[in-house]
Amino acid sequence: MKLLRVGATGQERPAALDAQGRLVDLSDLVVEIDGDFLSGNGIEAVRAAVTGGDLPLVADPAPRVGPPIARPGKIVCVGLNYSDHAAETGAEPPAEPILFMKAPNTMVGPNDQVLIPRGSVKTDWEVELAVVIGRTARYVESDAAALACVAGYTISNDLSEREFQLERGGQWDKGKSCETFNPLGPWLVTADEVPDPQRLNLRLAVNGTARQNGTTQNMIFGVAELVRYVSQFMVLEPGDVINTGTPAGVALGQPEPKPYLRAGDLIEVEIDGLGAQRQTVGAAA
Amino acid sequence: MKLLRVGATGQERPAALDAQGRLVDLSDLVVEIDGDFLSGNGIEAVRAAVTGGDLPLVADPAPRVGPPIARPGKIVCVGLNYSDHAAETGAEPPAEPILFMKAPNTMVGPNDQVLIPRGSVKTDWEVELAVVIGRTARYVESDAAALACVAGYTISNDLSEREFQLERGGQWDKGKSCETFNPLGPWLVTADEVPDPQRLNLRLAVNGTARQNGTTQNMIFGVAELVRYVSQFMVLEPGDVINTGTPAGVALGQPEPKPYLRAGDLIEVEIDGLGAQRQTVGAAA
Repeated sequence: MKLLRVGATGQERPAALDAQGRLVDLSDLVVEIDGDFLSGNGIEAVRAAVTGGDLPLVADPAPRVGPPIARPGKIVCVGLNYSDHAAETGAEPPAEPILFMKAPNTMVGPNDQVLIPRGSVKTDWEVELAVVIGRTARYVESDAAALACVAGYTISNDLSEREFQLERGGQWDKGKSCETFNPLGPWLVTADEVPDPQRLNLRLAVNGTARQNGTTQNMIFGVAELVRYVSQFMVLEPGDVINTGTPAGVALGQPEPKPYLRAGDLIEVEIDGLGAQRQTVGAAA
Repeated sequence: MKLLRVGATGQERPAALDAQGRLVDLSDLVVEIDGDFLSGNGIEAVRAAVTGGDLPLVADPAPRVGPPIARPGKIVCVGLNYSDHAAETGAEPPAEPILFMKAPNTMVGPNDQVLIPRGSVKTDWEVELAVVIGRTARYVESDAAALACVAGYTISNDLSEREFQLERGGQWDKGKSCETFNPLGPWLVTADEVPDPQRLNLRLAVNGTARQNGTTQNMIFGVAELVRYVSQFMVLEPGDVINTGTPAGVALGQPEPKPYLRAGDLIEVEIDGLGAQRQTVGAAA
């Protein structure tokens, strides 16, 4: 099933795509697509109601799409998790996952404007498979138990300011949490519709030029291993998001002059079966 | 004014200390001490009601004390921000603030049990002045505007697992977000009662042995500068917390064998005017 949230920023209503691809309004059935919803039997209740055909369609035929979940408790990111991306940055493939965090208020809808931060000259793109947690994950021991904690998947553009991240003293977080730096969506695709998260192609283009064209087969640490690993260091809760890393092709990895994002650019992002995103780039006022 | 939240974990009720030091129940007046409360005129309304003397006392004379704010949108931490602590870790004083993040679900009450993570042998303490944001801070330009965004102050014990932080590949966040790793409180002391946040003494003892005895005068970057600085890289929202760094005296800075925390230890933490914390240390089951 494909769950989404539609409407103006901060006023999104829960919705789903039905078998005919129509947009069904869930707001009589569901308060919010969030951790509480995902950790209960919300997905099954929605599936039954959508299949039953009793729910109204969303009135607006082409609404704004918000992030497919309400603001998560945390966004955990995995660094250098594709062999091709590690190579392009000049880094050794990590021996164990590199973790960092992104402020949850960076999350915007999949087609919302992305803002170049004030003073930034190195804003970069990163298409990523995002994992949305549906069950509390704490000291998870097996891959099967880890995957049972996954509610579903969506697309993340893990925008990064490379000067802030790498040249301003210390930790990567400084370049990862600027406003609008995490377009998410369009849909939360439930895990049953993604039989193998390690066989998805990811693509990102800027102004029509293909920049990233990877596959989750090249992840150094796969989804199950990541959930298991992260849960040894922190408690993952329903609604939390893991950005699982990006394949080769970011601006940082290109020859000089590196093609960092500029106001006016158009970013198009796509993952097999998870839909597509389209962001125009503006400048923070 | 001193605001707090009392009651069982997850069921805390808002409360305040009145002029006689009695615990006043705010639950008829206030839904929750959180970003919405802080960003409105909540503090002034509570002050008037407490002064008026019309509010009931909390029934339980010695309740559990929770964190003084509901779970924040983010906890931003500042690394190596005291000259004496930078020296003890062997690091150069940073040229600009080092930022990292801590998962908000690490937050527990000031006297709750702290858990040594599974597999940990290097769990460490860090007394810190915590800043609670009351107004959105985005690209703040002046110290005065930065301080106007501060709702108040409280005590934070920014627990850290040094092996996870420093020896497990990559970013500090990995050792900062274990469950129970952020005792906060007891009170949110409103900014008007802290005329100079750069003149506070901080103390931490383990099993009765003084370990940290510092002053916020030794901060490399003061509160106003930190709020201003962080707001250039991310949007701070009401209810967000900044852990402003720790003075010298952590276990990491001691000669071998370093006195890392063990189950059964007692941690006592204090900051002038902000109250005291007392945590027993257990082991994650």
